[in-house]
Amino acid sequence: MNTQRPLILITNDDGHAAKGLQRLIALMRTLGEVAVISTDEVMSAKSHSCTIHNKLRARLVREEKDFVEFRCNGTPVDCVKLAYQKLLPRTPDLVVSGINHGTNAASTVVYSGTVGAVIEACMNGLAAIGFSLDTLDPDADFGHLDTTILEITKKVLKEGLPKGVCLNVNFPKRCDEPLKGIKVCRQAACRWVEYFREQYDEHGELFFDLSGELVSDDITPGTDLHAIRNNYVAVVPTCFDWTAYTQIEPMKNYEQLSVKP
Amino acid sequence: MNTQRPLILITNDDGHAAKGLQRLIALMRTLGEVAVISTDEVMSAKSHSCTIHNKLRARLVREEKDFVEFRCNGTPVDCVKLAYQKLLPRTPDLVVSGINHGTNAASTVVYSGTVGAVIEACMNGLAAIGFSLDTLDPDADFGHLDTTILEITKKVLKEGLPKGVCLNVNFPKRCDEPLKGIKVCRQAACRWVEYFREQYDEHGELFFDLSGELVSDDITPGTDLHAIRNNYVAVVPTCFDWTAYTQIEPMKNYEQLSVKP
Repeated sequence: MNTQRPLILITNDDGHAAKGLQRLIALMRTLGEVAVISTDEVMSAKSHSCTIHNKLRARLVREEKDFVEFRCNGTPVDCVKLAYQKLLPRTPDLVVSGINHGTNAASTVVYSGTVGAVIEACMNGLAAIGFSLDTLDPDADFGHLDTTILEITKKVLKEGLPKGVCLNVNFPKRCDEPLKGIKVCRQAACRWVEYFREQYDEHGELFFDLSGELVSDDITPGTDLHAIRNNYVAVVPTCFDWTAYTQIEPMKNYEQLSVKP
Repeated sequence: MNTQRPLILITNDDGHAAKGLQRLIALMRTLGEVAVISTDEVMSAKSHSCTIHNKLRARLVREEKDFVEFRCNGTPVDCVKLAYQKLLPRTPDLVVSGINHGTNAASTVVYSGTVGAVIEACMNGLAAIGFSLDTLDPDADFGHLDTTILEITKKVLKEGLPKGVCLNVNFPKRCDEPLKGIKVCRQAACRWVEYFREQYDEHGELFFDLSGELVSDDITPGTDLHAIRNNYVAVVPTCFDWTAYTQIEPMKNYEQLSVKP
């Protein structure tokens, strides 16, 4: 009988000191052996970027029974690659990322380093889940997430996930009411409307300071944005196949175009 | 009658000096007014990352009849955001990115700064196309691409693209035979199998040098990899909705899990 506890790899994009990461570590340690690899710096909005032109480094910072922690100078995607291909003694049974300070619901997922790490794991055949909370507050209250994170994680450890599919799990910010439940949903369409404020640095040189707001005309039942705005947990089965399948047939007429020199 | 020529915004992720970018500029100038915003540095594998913690700068480097060129210290996604929201006098009719030195076919698209820029444009409702050639050679021969790029671009300028859909166009490397034609296809599944070679820098400190190869068990008819390996141009209609729709119903049982504190 194999009595080995599952090996769970944890990463995030808010840096090693983030409260959300520490919470996720505490929860995962109740379920198995844990290996953490986090980034030296905050890596928000690093998406799926990885390091190809700089020297990638990682170092062991803590080791105790059923627990190791590494730190890396790269991106969350680098962390996953390096951990499972080089640093860990065996292939992890699960990769979890987060808990992100800030939502990764709707199309904002494309910017997410948290979900980038999850997709990298998924591309390599590993079961993977990203957890995010809808507030940027570094001291956010994560207490209302515990049960749900444990329940979802236990289910994935037990059943696995379909090939090419990972989970993007988004939580609403804590409010006076308890969470209403879980909704399995699709990713809402949205975009950032940005303001680039013109500013001048100490040398009088112009730079642009980015701020903006999330705009969506797609907050309809069945979407992740609708779920979290109604105090549900949003679970989006997520893939790395970006083909717009409905457009393959309508666009077949592109095949008539000339390619002759 | 509106006789204004279309405004075409061009960016890339290989930096402003790349041969592929210069080729794309020359082609687009035959079709309309052109605005270029390229990056100071090579931004390969920057995916959809954008700049939120550093000072973003852009400067005008060239201006002549029907042509402006800016340079930016950010990522390709920053370039698109900044250009259309701040730098250009009107909304571009089309955004094109590339011509990338290196393929963005199959799942490698998730790492691509070239396609990151295209998706950013698409999220903001702009028609957008990414062009990539299957060789990393900085002095690559792009001559066999001209007709196809012009034909595809003219068609998109005339007809537009469906909402939420952009084009990821990949070309095979030049060979002895002429291109066979265009295939409208789906993105093949693949992954990088990486080797992290342990190396030591001048201070004796360990770092990891990344190399690897693309591995796919999905080079089947109907995929982009199959197309380019058979000397066709691959056109993949691409979206930023990453929902794995086929899994929403099978995963509804996640809604039975407890969320109680």
